[in-house]
Amino acid sequence: MSLLEPSTEPLDSASLQQLLWPQSIAIVGASPKPEKISAKVVNVLRRRGYTGRLYAVNPLYDEVLGMPSVPTARDLPEPVDLAVIVVAAAHVAGVVADCAAAGVAHTVVISSGFGEGNGNGAEHVAELLRHVAASGIRISGPNAEGFINLRGSVAATFSPTVEALPDDDSVLPGDVSVVAQSGGLGFALFNDGLRRGLGFSYVITTGNEVDLECLDYVDYLLDDPDTRIVALFVEGLKHPGRLSAIAAKASCLGKVLVAAKIGGSESGRRATISHTAHLAGDDAVYDAVFRRCGVVRAMDQEELIDIAMAFSRCPSPTGDRIGVLTTSGGGGAWMSDSLEATGLSVPTLSEPLQAKLRALIPEYGSAVNPVDATAQVVQTAGGLAPLLDVMAASGELDAIVLVTTLASVELVQREETALAAALAASNIPMMIYTYSGTGPGSIELVSRLGMALYTSSRRAARAMRALVDHDAFMQRERLAPGALDVGGWPALEGGPILVEHHAKRLLRDVGLHVPEGGLATDARAAGALAEQLGGSVAVKVQAADLPHKTEVRGVALGLVGAAAVQAAVEMMASRLDALGHGAVDGYLVEKMAPTGVEMIVGAYRDADFGPIVLVGLGGIHTEVLKDTVISPAPVSAHEAQEMVSRLNGAALLQGHRSGEPADIAALAACVATVSQLIVARPEIEEVDLNPVFVHPHGAGISVADAMVVIDAEPGPVQQPRDAAA
Amino acid sequence: MSLLEPSTEPLDSASLQQLLWPQSIAIVGASPKPEKISAKVVNVLRRRGYTGRLYAVNPLYDEVLGMPSVPTARDLPEPVDLAVIVVAAAHVAGVVADCAAAGVAHTVVISSGFGEGNGNGAEHVAELLRHVAASGIRISGPNAEGFINLRGSVAATFSPTVEALPDDDSVLPGDVSVVAQSGGLGFALFNDGLRRGLGFSYVITTGNEVDLECLDYVDYLLDDPDTRIVALFVEGLKHPGRLSAIAAKASCLGKVLVAAKIGGSESGRRATISHTAHLAGDDAVYDAVFRRCGVVRAMDQEELIDIAMAFSRCPSPTGDRIGVLTTSGGGGAWMSDSLEATGLSVPTLSEPLQAKLRALIPEYGSAVNPVDATAQVVQTAGGLAPLLDVMAASGELDAIVLVTTLASVELVQREETALAAALAASNIPMMIYTYSGTGPGSIELVSRLGMALYTSSRRAARAMRALVDHDAFMQRERLAPGALDVGGWPALEGGPILVEHHAKRLLRDVGLHVPEGGLATDARAAGALAEQLGGSVAVKVQAADLPHKTEVRGVALGLVGAAAVQAAVEMMASRLDALGHGAVDGYLVEKMAPTGVEMIVGAYRDADFGPIVLVGLGGIHTEVLKDTVISPAPVSAHEAQEMVSRLNGAALLQGHRSGEPADIAALAACVATVSQLIVARPEIEEVDLNPVFVHPHGAGISVADAMVVIDAEPGPVQQPRDAAA
Repeated sequence: MSLLEPSTEPLDSASLQQLLWPQSIAIVGASPKPEKISAKVVNVLRRRGYTGRLYAVNPLYDEVLGMPSVPTARDLPEPVDLAVIVVAAAHVAGVVADCAAAGVAHTVVISSGFGEGNGNGAEHVAELLRHVAASGIRISGPNAEGFINLRGSVAATFSPTVEALPDDDSVLPGDVSVVAQSGGLGFALFNDGLRRGLGFSYVITTGNEVDLECLDYVDYLLDDPDTRIVALFVEGLKHPGRLSAIAAKASCLGKVLVAAKIGGSESGRRATISHTAHLAGDDAVYDAVFRRCGVVRAMDQEELIDIAMAFSRCPSPTGDRIGVLTTSGGGGAWMSDSLEATGLSVPTLSEPLQAKLRALIPEYGSAVNPVDATAQVVQTAGGLAPLLDVMAASGELDAIVLVTTLASVELVQREETALAAALAASNIPMMIYTYSGTGPGSIELVSRLGMALYTSSRRAARAMRALVDHDAFMQRERLAPGALDVGGWPALEGGPILVEHHAKRLLRDVGLHVPEGGLATDARAAGALAEQLGGSVAVKVQAADLPHKTEVRGVALGLVGAAAVQAAVEMMASRLDALGHGAVDGYLVEKMAPTGVEMIVGAYRDADFGPIVLVGLGGIHTEVLKDTVISPAPVSAHEAQEMVSRLNGAALLQGHRSGEPADIAALAACVATVSQLIVARPEIEEVDLNPVFVHPHGAGISVADAMVVIDAEPGPVQQPRDAAA
Repeated sequence: MSLLEPSTEPLDSASLQQLLWPQSIAIVGASPKPEKISAKVVNVLRRRGYTGRLYAVNPLYDEVLGMPSVPTARDLPEPVDLAVIVVAAAHVAGVVADCAAAGVAHTVVISSGFGEGNGNGAEHVAELLRHVAASGIRISGPNAEGFINLRGSVAATFSPTVEALPDDDSVLPGDVSVVAQSGGLGFALFNDGLRRGLGFSYVITTGNEVDLECLDYVDYLLDDPDTRIVALFVEGLKHPGRLSAIAAKASCLGKVLVAAKIGGSESGRRATISHTAHLAGDDAVYDAVFRRCGVVRAMDQEELIDIAMAFSRCPSPTGDRIGVLTTSGGGGAWMSDSLEATGLSVPTLSEPLQAKLRALIPEYGSAVNPVDATAQVVQTAGGLAPLLDVMAASGELDAIVLVTTLASVELVQREETALAAALAASNIPMMIYTYSGTGPGSIELVSRLGMALYTSSRRAARAMRALVDHDAFMQRERLAPGALDVGGWPALEGGPILVEHHAKRLLRDVGLHVPEGGLATDARAAGALAEQLGGSVAVKVQAADLPHKTEVRGVALGLVGAAAVQAAVEMMASRLDALGHGAVDGYLVEKMAPTGVEMIVGAYRDADFGPIVLVGLGGIHTEVLKDTVISPAPVSAHEAQEMVSRLNGAALLQGHRSGEPADIAALAACVATVSQLIVARPEIEEVDLNPVFVHPHGAGISVADAMVVIDAEPGPVQQPRDAAA
């Protein structure tokens, strides 16, 4: 929304340090009435152990809730690190000006009334931004719920969740941090995670992001040694173009970004727009960008915590072979179903391994995988730990899920020492799925063991899948993407729509194979050209205002000889005359391409993320099956091949019937070339090659039809992504 | 597994009444040691308030745990209604014989050792079944965890879940009953449901089902006035053929069967087989059967409770237009995304309705849908109840999800009376999704209100979708399926494989359109036939041992004139000679079918569920896209049309490009006919029509290729499903 502009600069880390670890805080609009939001902030700060200096700003009092109070922020006795502002929207800008004058570095604006929902407030936003620009003071919010820094004991928030936390030391910090555009959901995630035994370092809610945006905080947290996992809840990014660099930083540092993004549905987008004035980006593009830069996507709130828990507690798996060890046959089967449903493998164990396991389980168990140790194993046999040891050391499994009941903690507790030893000795992920909920003490027990804990087989399986996928991403990232030679591309002729014959000249120049042929200006020339080409030819009328040639019957295929071609062109010309159509560029006469699997290759510019490349099933399939895969451009041929493999109809290219696979390498090279083309030439708006015939292996491709859309006034050249990414 | 045979007869309800409401119970193998399973059963029975007569059977004592004890079951002072048997597997059959001699009606066999896992025990099963057959005594189990009848205060189980229940009256009975083949999971479901505020009537675990099977209990529960929802956990059904009649009974009585079935994956099936000796049926067939007879399928344990909760607390919706009322913009957007992701609609509300709602919410809210009432609505405005009233009465919505926080109960509690009134005044489903968990007292509050409660937007959406789908099913069921005329089908010639020309004669006889043509025995005759047919023809070699004609290049398409056909047949014949192939039936010469959308129509017999009909994308798509829908046969044309609409590629038939839709009605009629054919003729094993060309609307279909497989020794005629179903 335009009211968010002009935007401000990202912060350096040192500055955010001052926000999140403030030595002094002023509460502007502090009230002594305990039910007021400002009083709740003060109460929460103190209850969570804040030890810095606190001031109130309120002209009615000399002291508020035990804090010295001054009439305005200009009267503060020191330039505080942070001012928390809780006054009516109309007064916020004045307060910010006062704070700036007093040398305050940071503000958290809790007040709402800045353009959310049906309300007004654009003028307030503009005024705020003027102060930011003039003074360098920074704003978190407005309409934010504040933040909590658990290691620094700074809880600058009125969140009821934080208010309700126990006073004691049971809230242990951990390696997960939350950044959320929605205050309610951000602290709800924190609350859910705590209840499930997860430890946090920071929970930061960002509100309307008129100044600081969520990626600023993420950037800071990646440098924070205590944070390994950032759980991000976004409705839409203010500067989507920043994401890939930040994600690359996360990968380099071995940290994980897990993101839940709402607004994938039409009604969800309506809600998002009305909520925080963000325009949610196209969901499929976000999906492709997340995948491309290793951001793990969670589909709901539970899954965000499920996945954060997996990364927090599990080492990286190095493959997808999952072992299931169960004390309940039914629970084990359910877990196996769920794992296989997400695409993971639950392999049958080797006979020697089964024999080792059989020696450790009762007669009525099973050692196949799932390994059914039966409920008796913990009562009468040697317990679960020796089984975990054997399974983990076997080399046959990349991860293990233990299925058992935690309705009562005793069962697992009696093995705590042995299980801890088994975990310490192994370097593969181990999760627990309890099919009977978590009885008292069980969450603490599993936290002590450091295993990821789930109460649903499906959710455990999805979390495991996230681990496996992210490891595959990390392996892939280490492959060099190959030098992308984007220099020396030819100049573009024509526009705004490059019709087929222009487009194909461009494609030929960049090394893509198009059928041999040329443009003829009249029927006789077309006949002569056909004669020269020999064999069977295609004839297509060429005019910028006829992008859909078949609709005017401007295409004839499989013509042989000059006479047939001449007659066809004459018929097309007279038909266009009859339709009242004016001059055309001419008639493209081309050798018929040999057949092949019909694909589409394309590229376009996304408003948020820039150039995007697409590959999919072509021809008639394009519209019916909508089987396409997109990725931010450019992509290497290797990445393009991976895109192709993700098509539902990928089997079409693998010689499913004839036994003769298509030339997937040539298709991938074409996708990579198109992705480089749109990156290198900012004047290209769209590329649409459909169909591209993919011939049998080794025989390459033919671009049978092509269109390129040119923007007469392009923006600056968009650079390809950092080549190191 | 064959060890389950011979099977026994289903029970009548009166007899199960004696099992589940016993006046007297004997514990065979009762031990005074509290850690023993038998002692736990006695303890649980007493703690849950059993008031009938209890006896112990144990030769070592005169009294056990306050019960009179007798040496053997033959010495019992009365023929008890139920004997719970907890002795070693080898002694169970003897005990059952004693019980039978003493006139005991029912046994629950808790002991394991009857062929589970790697263990033996087939001989014990056989012995048990002999006693059942000889005396009429019935067995629940073995390897069962028993049952609980909450209204009758009969808890004949050692389940730790039941043992751990509080003594007080906080366990309120309700309208959900659980039947589970896995004892651990059955009582885990009960426990999960209780924790979430759900009320139960019965939890019954069925173990290995050597005698009584889960459908016996389901049948009983459908007659139980206190049970409205049966939650079924199955690994595989012992007599799958009984399911459709029992499901039809549920529909007639307005009750709902919700089923989770494991064993969908290969490893899951391994676990299932090793667990209870059931062979899990083909998962896709179970899916189709469940859908066909209105059984709601749950994909995991949480979803089973999620869906049971929805049916227990919500009336039936009459459409898929869902309203979202939220106190958090982010939570509302997430809910909307989830609803639309499951295929439900979250429509924009009409302007007059929005105006009414705007009057009830703060300025910064939104009335579009999701209706964002903001967190302030409950603080300062009139609360949520008036909004629910307006939304429910609008006629624009078929159901409502309220999104709010229940981290603290006060927010909703202060409106309890008004919300209860709003719910009482409406007749549409209303659910609550809390994005911040359930604080103390909130589950009780929502239970009092009678709203379904979820802590995940996705799970709430799936439960809502189950309600909407089930209502659509109930509406559909009320349509008359139409009289299925299965009389007068022709006799079948040839076999075991009816080659194309035989198969097509059959198809023509049953009214399906096949291209005009006939069989020629040699090249000259083929030429003459082509001449007679005129136009372009197809020629295909016909021999029972050449089902894949194209592999021997035995097909030639688009030939014109006698000479071309004669030459083609000569070439085929010489090629077959060269391959050493013997005599053929001849050469099928047919008019080329006009083109159309290529589909496959087929039918086959499933070992569990009998005749199944299939429709899908045909030709090359069949193998690559595997886009097919199956259903138990027979289906009406109306049902067939619904099957077609569920294909991923259904748009192929709807004139996506040409604007000319295909003749879907003719395709549906073809599917219905094939489904009736396989039901009427038990000697037909398989029908495979591929491709079937579906011509433009009104122009019908052409069956271009066909194969029928005949079983020389068919079983008895399978009757079509009860026409009233």
